[in-house]
Amino acid sequence: MCELLGMNANVPTDIRFSFSALAQRGGGTGPHRDGWGIAFYEGRGARAFHDPQPSAHSEIARLLRDYPLKSKIVIAHVRRANRGRVALENTHPFTRELWGRAWTFAHNGQLKGVKKRSLDLYKPIGTTDSEHAFCWLLGQLRARFSSLPSPDALDQALGELCADLGALGVFNVLVSEGRTLYAFCNKKLFYLVRCWPFGVATLIDEDLRVDFSTMTTPNDRVVVVASSPLTRDEVWLELPARTMTVFRNGQLIPHAPKSADQRSAAP
Amino acid sequence: MCELLGMNANVPTDIRFSFSALAQRGGGTGPHRDGWGIAFYEGRGARAFHDPQPSAHSEIARLLRDYPLKSKIVIAHVRRANRGRVALENTHPFTRELWGRAWTFAHNGQLKGVKKRSLDLYKPIGTTDSEHAFCWLLGQLRARFSSLPSPDALDQALGELCADLGALGVFNVLVSEGRTLYAFCNKKLFYLVRCWPFGVATLIDEDLRVDFSTMTTPNDRVVVVASSPLTRDEVWLELPARTMTVFRNGQLIPHAPKSADQRSAAP
Repeated sequence: MCELLGMNANVPTDIRFSFSALAQRGGGTGPHRDGWGIAFYEGRGARAFHDPQPSAHSEIARLLRDYPLKSKIVIAHVRRANRGRVALENTHPFTRELWGRAWTFAHNGQLKGVKKRSLDLYKPIGTTDSEHAFCWLLGQLRARFSSLPSPDALDQALGELCADLGALGVFNVLVSEGRTLYAFCNKKLFYLVRCWPFGVATLIDEDLRVDFSTMTTPNDRVVVVASSPLTRDEVWLELPARTMTVFRNGQLIPHAPKSADQRSAAP
Repeated sequence: MCELLGMNANVPTDIRFSFSALAQRGGGTGPHRDGWGIAFYEGRGARAFHDPQPSAHSEIARLLRDYPLKSKIVIAHVRRANRGRVALENTHPFTRELWGRAWTFAHNGQLKGVKKRSLDLYKPIGTTDSEHAFCWLLGQLRARFSSLPSPDALDQALGELCADLGALGVFNVLVSEGRTLYAFCNKKLFYLVRCWPFGVATLIDEDLRVDFSTMTTPNDRVVVVASSPLTRDEVWLELPARTMTVFRNGQLIPHAPKSADQRSAAP
């Protein structure tokens, strides 16, 4: 299995505090030593760092713990390989272009039989289930919409497609097109919203404590999503299962459409 | 304009010596201060580092000058913006997936009217001529071949398509699919092959000198391609103009097919 970390904020925000905790879990306080990666959106662009080395001992991770890259959307992943050998091409997050936007995808779980789903335009470079699922997802989106649809239409379509993939196994996933952070969970994913009045937080995995009130303005809002809580003195909420949760501008979008299987289960 | 650096070797090779020179030209000894990027192939995977900061003063460039990432194919670029603002999404090299392979592209020059060429599957994320040309190139390749063709067929097709783009202006370009380093030049691009017996080289842009005989084996072969010579004590050759030069396993492939306009100009 693996661990995920996502961030969505309404102002460019420094992820180093949360990333330090995740990086420790890659071969330090956690067993996810089979590579790691992180993608930062800056405007329409995204830059990703990948390393097949354990993040707890990675020179590149050390740089990112020291160097403040600010972003409104970040997706990070530490890997414990199950399908696909330890190799750069199997290291999440995966990225592809669709409709002139940079898409990023990271997955925790296993999807039984996903490789039987045929692919058309997007093909995996590596051998993971996860990249195959991502290629399938983008192919389906492209078949539904010839250009970037409205946020509501995209939220709805992604919710349906992720519910479909989630029927194949454990599918905790973070996806973004640079505007929205999508989090789909069918097993375990937590989140919190940091907003005014900001307080103090202490990492679980490392002796690191931050007073957010000294580095924020009253209008700042930051959502953090993680496979398990990263701090000991904040309230982390579990994401609802089998549902697409949508974050934009540092807020949970409350009326995100439900996934198809939920709607059909309604009375 | 911009500067390019490419490397192709038959064994995973450390690019730091050459990269140090290129990085200096990004705001130090040269005016290419509008961002930089570098892509390293490792097996089927590629990892890229991008930064809209000048490479001469970039923390990420500093890490890469200290940290030995070894690769058989590297493509790097320092940018001096002409079309497209200074921004992460306009920073070369650009990457896309085609036929399940990671493609990388970096360009020096300007292409008049290239944005009038219609695009189908691949769309630019930024606003440069260069990324538009790359998207057009990959779309054309996909239209010609439904899966990865033989090396000869791909060499031929890329030569024709680059000659076509080169008719629009200055088009010095480095492209790779992870197996081959393609260099197309219609203005200025130099290369050298380092092979046994290895000697000493001294950078032009920095007080740095290396004795390659202490770090190589007799079978190693390394091609370096650059917009202008990087060392003062080696023989750099100019690449032939309006021709696709093909490098595989640290060797210039001597019978690379000529580009279409060259063939039609033959008696």
